[in-house]
Amino acid sequence: MPVGTQATVKGLTVPMVRETGAEILLGNTYHLAVRPGTDLIARLGGLHTFMGWDRPILTDSGGFQIFSLGQNAEISEEGAVFRSHVDGRKIELTPERAMQAQAELGSDIAMVLDHVVALPNPPEIVRAACERSIRWAERCRAVAGDQTQFAIVQGGLDAEMRLWSAEELTQLDFPGYAIGGLSVGESPEEMYRILQVTCPVLPERCPRYLMGVGRPQDILESVRLGVDMFDCVMPTRNARNALAFTDEGPIRLRNACHREDPRPVDAQTPSAASGVSRSYLRHLFAAGEMLGPILTTSHNLAYYQCLMREIRDAIEADTFMELYNAKMRGWQQGPANG
Amino acid sequence: MPVGTQATVKGLTVPMVRETGAEILLGNTYHLAVRPGTDLIARLGGLHTFMGWDRPILTDSGGFQIFSLGQNAEISEEGAVFRSHVDGRKIELTPERAMQAQAELGSDIAMVLDHVVALPNPPEIVRAACERSIRWAERCRAVAGDQTQFAIVQGGLDAEMRLWSAEELTQLDFPGYAIGGLSVGESPEEMYRILQVTCPVLPERCPRYLMGVGRPQDILESVRLGVDMFDCVMPTRNARNALAFTDEGPIRLRNACHREDPRPVDAQTPSAASGVSRSYLRHLFAAGEMLGPILTTSHNLAYYQCLMREIRDAIEADTFMELYNAKMRGWQQGPANG
Repeated sequence: MPVGTQATVKGLTVPMVRETGAEILLGNTYHLAVRPGTDLIARLGGLHTFMGWDRPILTDSGGFQIFSLGQNAEISEEGAVFRSHVDGRKIELTPERAMQAQAELGSDIAMVLDHVVALPNPPEIVRAACERSIRWAERCRAVAGDQTQFAIVQGGLDAEMRLWSAEELTQLDFPGYAIGGLSVGESPEEMYRILQVTCPVLPERCPRYLMGVGRPQDILESVRLGVDMFDCVMPTRNARNALAFTDEGPIRLRNACHREDPRPVDAQTPSAASGVSRSYLRHLFAAGEMLGPILTTSHNLAYYQCLMREIRDAIEADTFMELYNAKMRGWQQGPANG
Repeated sequence: MPVGTQATVKGLTVPMVRETGAEILLGNTYHLAVRPGTDLIARLGGLHTFMGWDRPILTDSGGFQIFSLGQNAEISEEGAVFRSHVDGRKIELTPERAMQAQAELGSDIAMVLDHVVALPNPPEIVRAACERSIRWAERCRAVAGDQTQFAIVQGGLDAEMRLWSAEELTQLDFPGYAIGGLSVGESPEEMYRILQVTCPVLPERCPRYLMGVGRPQDILESVRLGVDMFDCVMPTRNARNALAFTDEGPIRLRNACHREDPRPVDAQTPSAASGVSRSYLRHLFAAGEMLGPILTTSHNLAYYQCLMREIRDAIEADTFMELYNAKMRGWQQGPANG
């Protein structure tokens, strides 16, 4: 899922996002609550109408911002109280309020409010946040409306805690399960270990969503371990820094080696960037032109969507491990150039 | 003509530029000579290929930068020597070099090198620049290749000087004539007075191009006085500052009155911005999102293209003055809101 934090996938119009193959976007409840306000978006017809996106939207709950904006947040059993990063205004985020805000946004999939902590952290802190996340999930489930509600498994790097969290949440019978609190400072290997433990105990018939991950190799590895859905700012944020993903590893478009390179950024991936050369993209970044981030964002999202499509096709054709080995080999060659 | 200074109309992909109705773009020779270099663009197949635009391109000669980057330029009879505004490198722009650079860019219409001075300026300075511009035009004509070459009438606010310049250039038999050195500090009325004098003496069968103009009302007035073509950064630059043009005057999208306004920026002008509300556009600008400038640029260019189309249709239907009066009335009502 491309990330549309502030009701826009940064730099792309809705037709351009559609063109990358995206079928569902992620919106950030906390950011939209701060500005322009979920109540305002509700009065304007909800997030789909507001941003002009007629396909599914998943909204997060704001739980991740408890982690990422930690110094501006106070946590209690009731919920989190933030100082807005925009205007210092007080913003309260309880499980009930998180569900209400997402109902105002009118997303198709709403996430429960969870308590995310950084890793590593002492076991008692991870445990307390994990237990609180279960209690908050119950409160969210109690006020569920007609949105599809996903639970979020927490538990840090403690396998037993993850198992306990997964089992508790499974009893609440959610239609989908996310794995949260990863990609927050731990190594990829630690993350994979947790996925290996957690995925098998989540209900087979429900989608499994790994939040905030990641690099193409993380995605491929996580699918191997049983994950179905992902969201990450990596394709979009890196694009704005002139980094383009390809099957031969990432390309740094600012590098001098692309100065006169007439090749497209990636001949394998059709996107809005297909019609121009690496030389042109390098020029756009050098000149500080918006079109550099725009075209590279289009490419990176198309690359990620294409990867997910290849994965789905390979699973259906029972050739996933062939795809896995081929992709990993290509990426491990390192940067194709620059 | 939308302005594509650095081989891109700021913020728009080529399909989006096409969608606004644009049939010809302007490229800036000086900027492209500085970065990435006209020789590099030539080696990559010319400006059309480089930026992926397959419709006509007009390139200026760099003469305007003699004016706008004046403190970095030394002028002699031979030509202008600039210090690059990017890296301080010395850039020589003689009439012959200006034509060569434009040939490297491969534009469809190439402008002669002229010597633009600010207004007001003492008569002897305006006269010297005007006379030099004629001599430079001769030198450009002498090295003309297969590009369509437009002359540029100079002469400041001196009607006789303008007439003399127009007559001298007409004798060199150019396929098109620009009126330059306007919109550089003088009042609209002074500009109109010069157009009134100059247009009638330019050959009827040749396009007349008013460089660097302007506001919608300037365009309409100038067409009334005989101008056929325009270029201006106004629709694009203003869009990035959240100002949108409409038949009811300009709209400042940052204004609080648009906070919950569900209306599109302009129901009369189809563009990439048509599907979203003023409220959404205001949110994008408030949040510093690229999509604000992108959508507003699309709207403003569509608005200007639509205006030119209405003008052409009205001229054909012999109803130009009706259109003129209606448009002027609408714009003079002042900002519709904010």
